Amino acid sequence: MTATRSEVKSCVVVDTSRSPYSRLAPVGVERVELNDSFWEPRLEINRRVTIPSQYEQCEATGRIDNFRRASGRKDVEFQGIYFNDSDVYKWLEAAVFSLARRPDPELNDLVDVVVDEIMAAQDVDGYLDTYFTFEKKADRWTNIRDMHELYCAGHLIQAAVAHHRATGKPELLQTAIRLSDHICETFGPEARRCAPGHEEIEMALVELYRETGCERYLRRAGFFIDQRGSKPPVIGGSPYHQDHLPFRQFHEMVGHAVRALYLNSGATDVYAETGEPALIQALDRLWQNMTTRRMYVTGGLGARHEGEAFGADFELPNDRAYTETCAAIGSVMWNWRLLALSGDARYADLMELTLYNGMLAGLSLDGKSYFYQNPLSDEGEHRRQPWFGCACCPPNVARMLASLPGYFYSVSRKGAWVHLYAAGKVTIPLPDGGELGLTQTTDYPWSGEITIDVTAAPARPISLFLRVPGWCETPSVRVNGQAHTDPLAPDSYVDLAREWRAGDRVELSLPMPVRLVESHPHLTSNTGQRTICRGPLVYCVEHADNPDTDVRDLHLTPGAPLTAEFRPDLLNGVVTIKGDGKCADRDVWQGALYRASTHGEPPLPDRPVCFTAIPYYAWANREPGPMRVWLPCA
Amino acid sequence: MTATRSEVKSCVVVDTSRSPYSRLAPVGVERVELNDSFWEPRLEINRRVTIPSQYEQCEATGRIDNFRRASGRKDVEFQGIYFNDSDVYKWLEAAVFSLARRPDPELNDLVDVVVDEIMAAQDVDGYLDTYFTFEKKADRWTNIRDMHELYCAGHLIQAAVAHHRATGKPELLQTAIRLSDHICETFGPEARRCAPGHEEIEMALVELYRETGCERYLRRAGFFIDQRGSKPPVIGGSPYHQDHLPFRQFHEMVGHAVRALYLNSGATDVYAETGEPALIQALDRLWQNMTTRRMYVTGGLGARHEGEAFGADFELPNDRAYTETCAAIGSVMWNWRLLALSGDARYADLMELTLYNGMLAGLSLDGKSYFYQNPLSDEGEHRRQPWFGCACCPPNVARMLASLPGYFYSVSRKGAWVHLYAAGKVTIPLPDGGELGLTQTTDYPWSGEITIDVTAAPARPISLFLRVPGWCETPSVRVNGQAHTDPLAPDSYVDLAREWRAGDRVELSLPMPVRLVESHPHLTSNTGQRTICRGPLVYCVEHADNPDTDVRDLHLTPGAPLTAEFRPDLLNGVVTIKGDGKCADRDVWQGALYRASTHGEPPLPDRPVCFTAIPYYAWANREPGPMRVWLPCA
Repeated sequence: MTATRSEVKSCVVVDTSRSPYSRLAPVGVERVELNDSFWEPRLEINRRVTIPSQYEQCEATGRIDNFRRASGRKDVEFQGIYFNDSDVYKWLEAAVFSLARRPDPELNDLVDVVVDEIMAAQDVDGYLDTYFTFEKKADRWTNIRDMHELYCAGHLIQAAVAHHRATGKPELLQTAIRLSDHICETFGPEARRCAPGHEEIEMALVELYRETGCERYLRRAGFFIDQRGSKPPVIGGSPYHQDHLPFRQFHEMVGHAVRALYLNSGATDVYAETGEPALIQALDRLWQNMTTRRMYVTGGLGARHEGEAFGADFELPNDRAYTETCAAIGSVMWNWRLLALSGDARYADLMELTLYNGMLAGLSLDGKSYFYQNPLSDEGEHRRQPWFGCACCPPNVARMLASLPGYFYSVSRKGAWVHLYAAGKVTIPLPDGGELGLTQTTDYPWSGEITIDVTAAPARPISLFLRVPGWCETPSVRVNGQAHTDPLAPDSYVDLAREWRAGDRVELSLPMPVRLVESHPHLTSNTGQRTICRGPLVYCVEHADNPDTDVRDLHLTPGAPLTAEFRPDLLNGVVTIKGDGKCADRDVWQGALYRASTHGEPPLPDRPVCFTAIPYYAWANREPGPMRVWLPCA
Repeated sequence: MTATRSEVKSCVVVDTSRSPYSRLAPVGVERVELNDSFWEPRLEINRRVTIPSQYEQCEATGRIDNFRRASGRKDVEFQGIYFNDSDVYKWLEAAVFSLARRPDPELNDLVDVVVDEIMAAQDVDGYLDTYFTFEKKADRWTNIRDMHELYCAGHLIQAAVAHHRATGKPELLQTAIRLSDHICETFGPEARRCAPGHEEIEMALVELYRETGCERYLRRAGFFIDQRGSKPPVIGGSPYHQDHLPFRQFHEMVGHAVRALYLNSGATDVYAETGEPALIQALDRLWQNMTTRRMYVTGGLGARHEGEAFGADFELPNDRAYTETCAAIGSVMWNWRLLALSGDARYADLMELTLYNGMLAGLSLDGKSYFYQNPLSDEGEHRRQPWFGCACCPPNVARMLASLPGYFYSVSRKGAWVHLYAAGKVTIPLPDGGELGLTQTTDYPWSGEITIDVTAAPARPISLFLRVPGWCETPSVRVNGQAHTDPLAPDSYVDLAREWRAGDRVELSLPMPVRLVESHPHLTSNTGQRTICRGPLVYCVEHADNPDTDVRDLHLTPGAPLTAEFRPDLLNGVVTIKGDGKCADRDVWQGALYRASTHGEPPLPDRPVCFTAIPYYAWANREPGPMRVWLPCA
């Protein structure tokens, strides 16, 4: 048993504040106030609709009763899938982040109930997994690859750390510590050598180390990573399980996408503490492979339905994109960790792209239904569901949104960092004392004009690092009306170093013209096609906005203007893109699937059409119909 | 027990000679002599290499020992997968068709051995499945959906019917009859209502009905079809199992592709006997859906790896095409049955397309290794294997090739039909007496010039129906030097009716210029791309012929000439297609996966290249490298 530190901590997402190989330290959720029209309403829907309705789902599906059963408080059968505990833990983590952001007595009561049920379900030896109780007790730790006990444990630990940071209450953290100690005694170099089939425990144990200072948790996190790719294999040796090679030899993103991303997140956490070069070299290779060969334009990850897995290089089908919402979340988590190590803007860029597109599409505008898969092309049949038998995605979205303010800012020895833009306020505690107060005024992501007013500052020079997104070709910044002397580079942080004073004003201009984006020629499912982007948003064309056009016949016209227009009435307020295109006349095909093509002949008949595109995240919130992200362009 | 008819029959593929709703009757394998340079060498490789090596594989993997175990002749454990009996049956069917085509004493001996082992393994009640013996005997018929007992039984019945037709020996047919009687007693309207999870028994039972005249087999075939889509479902109700709807309500090809095609083949067989309109209407809908929405340009079927299944309309990824070799074979089998019903050339067209492309790619040129999946785009990693744990495809290819001569000709009341072209001879027995002898002289598929000499004919007017392929835009025919009066329509049979005499000569000209083929605009994985075709062959570009070009960068140049050239030295002799294209300069991408595209700018830099394309069936027979069927064209 390890004692928890006594101080109430800031509710940060990943606590790299004392990590020797991390450049950035986080700024807690409780310090960030959003008052924008994009994220803040979503966080409120998350608090008022999503999180309460997920609690109801957890009750209705027996997920919480499974704890009551394990503790003997309720005489019922185990219900649902064997790893359903994890959904309750993720829900709890979402709830406590939400409480850190905004008090909510009703939610607070629910949290207390759930924490109490979890704690009561723990066995005397520290074991806690409600599936392996009573008649299944003998099966504990017998199938580490498939039964997800370590996965569930990891989610409990993450929830407990967040609960401790948000509330200061030690009880649930003690439960997580008892379970972690049990795990550390069961597995290890002198105990059993194994690795979880579904990674998650790794990053959880590093965070528990950060919360408690107990190095054994860090060592076990590293141990679990080191076991992968053992000869003989400990969990079968398949790429699906990221067990085909030792982690330090990885060079491609393979296998189950969510697992791979959680593994990388954990390995990044370990690197932040140990600084082992072979780890960061493997992580760099994986990030390169993922972003240049195996990632959708939305930031979505996992091309294959079979195995919920990464595909081969350039294998990125649009209609059958698996792109699990949890994989997008895993990518945000991993990129957040890589960003903390380096302060390299490319990680923040990908985090932003994924938040606004690959992740956000996973949730309906009303906060009540979810996508598991996020295809980039659909015929109108893929619709969000209020819950799933395997319900990993819904509470994962909830905790990502609840913790989102914690991804906006960082602090380093040199100063403060602004990663994301949205109207709001923050007070950033500086490592050498004092605080930097900032107020953002902007209509981001609809506008790239951002005003940052300094509301408090220490009486010494510090840097204000502002992210210049990679999508912006003509960024500029003014400080108190004076243009910045050096040109700003896209995909970097501009370092504004000075002795800041309350009343200083920074004006960052990130012009966001409509862009057409094309993909690498080897990505053949996008050959001859373009997608529309503006700022951080990827757009799509959906039938609901184009009732007189079959969007499957729509072609973009090269060179035709594309016009952005804010529509406050539409989809809770979005900037739409309008343009002139043409509709191919498919009648000439007479139903044929293939036909001889003669190149000397004039092109197919078509008719001009005006079309409207909407942000991808907002699709499938109205009547069903075809949707396309990529459009032929000729 | 039903007595088998005593006469030795012609070794036909599907005996529709007395089917009331079938227009065409088959011409047995033994009546067709091929002496061409395309199929005949393949059939010889099949006889000399493929079939003997598959016997060795069946022995080496315990597939035949499983029968010896079941009969008590050998004390070994059951080896391999529970449905491995089917591979032995398919091998046997291949072997007896090969014997019907050409005597082979060694193969004959192997056939006798295998037949003896099979017969000895049958239980006293007629049951025969080597997996469900000894300790598993109690599990017989307990899981009709998953355990494939009826699937294995169907393959035994097909092999036994072929064995009877080829050899005249009644023993194995009696074994099949005993098993079928056991099945008919176990399942039926007055017995147990169920349907097989893997279809196959249906067409087998219809053929057994045709061979024996026992109507109960026909009724049970219909019964099994009728059980699908029952409420409540008999095997789970999933589209994967074609159990989501009653068959007569089917309108889309769904689920496991091989199973769906075997089901349709069986339903077509039932229709040929019963003439029930609802059956043929469902089959028509399914064929329309398959050919206009869910079929690769090679005739390959089954877009999805998950479930080895058909995808949605227009879901036809090239790199992850599943396109199981068995599905192509299933399509040939189904189209052969539809052709027999109607004499409609579209079925023969698809049969030919599939034989030359989707099916034939499944076998290496040396006859020793096999593809399970047949993608249309590859990076050089997909290679044929000498065998598989689940080895359905290898013996299926062997039996298709062995029986291929039986797909060349048919006969109807009006006369004789020529479906496929290859140099060779045939003597076609006519229903009203007499024979029509024909000799084909042609270099088909490399040339479309076909001379057919009449070597024998009855002294009365009859029709000679010659297939005019749909791919030919300018067909013409001369009889004894006289041009046919009516223009020939592509995708039809030209009816040459006259009193034929020995010495008459028909000259069919099917010009085969190189064609570029495009796909329906909704098939977005082919947007902006074309494939090269000539005659019945689909071409691909493979690295081995284009060592100085990365074929992934190759673009076709609109309007550039494409030249056919016969290369006797290459790939056992093929017509290659040479053309001028260009190679995109991908260096400008600097590794990026996506980038902003500005349409006003000049196109990407590229360099002109000459490329060589080869028939798709011949790919992956040399050193590994990228391969593409569809090429960007701009």
